[in-house]
Amino acid sequence: MKVLVILGHPNPGESFNRAIVETACRTLREMGHEPVLRDLYAEKFDPVMPMGEEKLPIEELPESVRREIDAVREADGFVIVHPNWWGTPPAILKGWLDRVFRAGFAYSFSANGVVSNFTEKRAQVFTTSNTPRDVELEVYHDPLENFWKTIVFGLVGSRDFGRRNFESIIMSSPEERAAWLTEVEAIVKKRFAE
Amino acid sequence: MKVLVILGHPNPGESFNRAIVETACRTLREMGHEPVLRDLYAEKFDPVMPMGEEKLPIEELPESVRREIDAVREADGFVIVHPNWWGTPPAILKGWLDRVFRAGFAYSFSANGVVSNFTEKRAQVFTTSNTPRDVELEVYHDPLENFWKTIVFGLVGSRDFGRRNFESIIMSSPEERAAWLTEVEAIVKKRFAE
Repeated sequence: MKVLVILGHPNPGESFNRAIVETACRTLREMGHEPVLRDLYAEKFDPVMPMGEEKLPIEELPESVRREIDAVREADGFVIVHPNWWGTPPAILKGWLDRVFRAGFAYSFSANGVVSNFTEKRAQVFTTSNTPRDVELEVYHDPLENFWKTIVFGLVGSRDFGRRNFESIIMSSPEERAAWLTEVEAIVKKRFAE
Repeated sequence: MKVLVILGHPNPGESFNRAIVETACRTLREMGHEPVLRDLYAEKFDPVMPMGEEKLPIEELPESVRREIDAVREADGFVIVHPNWWGTPPAILKGWLDRVFRAGFAYSFSANGVVSNFTEKRAQVFTTSNTPRDVELEVYHDPLENFWKTIVFGLVGSRDFGRRNFESIIMSSPEERAAWLTEVEAIVKKRFAE
């Protein structure tokens, strides 16, 4: 299996987001899979979709977007890692979706309605936050769960989906973070089992 | 009143988003208010928050971000206009929030919890979409309402808040769009009444 591992976090050095990515990649390799890392900040991915891009055929898109589309096409699944900024992904990852998960590729319109094109691709999302879990669920209605599970992977049809949020990063101990990474390993093993 | 009018739409020419902005600005001027337009695509606003920016004092931020913060500080309210892309704003506007509505400015942390700093600023959001209203509400749980009302303006404390979504843009007739603009005028008049 090829698994596209997408990181939307500004820190190129040590961060818990990066530790999740490294754990996920290592686990996938140990399983005999091929992780393909997309560190969107390192790539300097431009998240601003210009006017009319949605109407262009894929072969006329900028190379930087076509490259992402090719990687998504070849992938059997996704691991997505990012912090919670305003109940949504950082803009760089939001715009990656705007440009890469495009109509006619990730989903299509037919006479019978919307057709999901990623039904065979698995998806695992890991998010991090500092908001207490009860506030995130009760006050903010768990917006990242709705975004990834229902809106994004609901539309493109990836039913083999899971998400785990780790909080509070800022208050966590080294022991807690180590236990979380062990959990990342177990989740990745289960999600991408043959 | 100074009202910051923020547009997050790629089309520099004719679009219904732009027609909303023009109607809002004209109405505000007729009321004796001062609309201050931020067309984020025209400004080429960079929505990608670099590492560590959240820790910088405002005076050390890039000029392009300080300029937005100054405009927000001086504003008595906001009109925000954008299309619905994946139940969230386009990345350019998402990142404007990431960088401009920063901790220590839009909200602060105190010993007693989060303090909202924009309680006196009014907010009106206009969004556009092509998804049928019942699908947006029942399947996707009205994510833009949750995002703007509860997450963003809930946290910064703007209780004088309203949002109107217009759909379906793609199926609308010229008469329908004209009626919608009349509604925009009425909403702006009410929201920004003395």
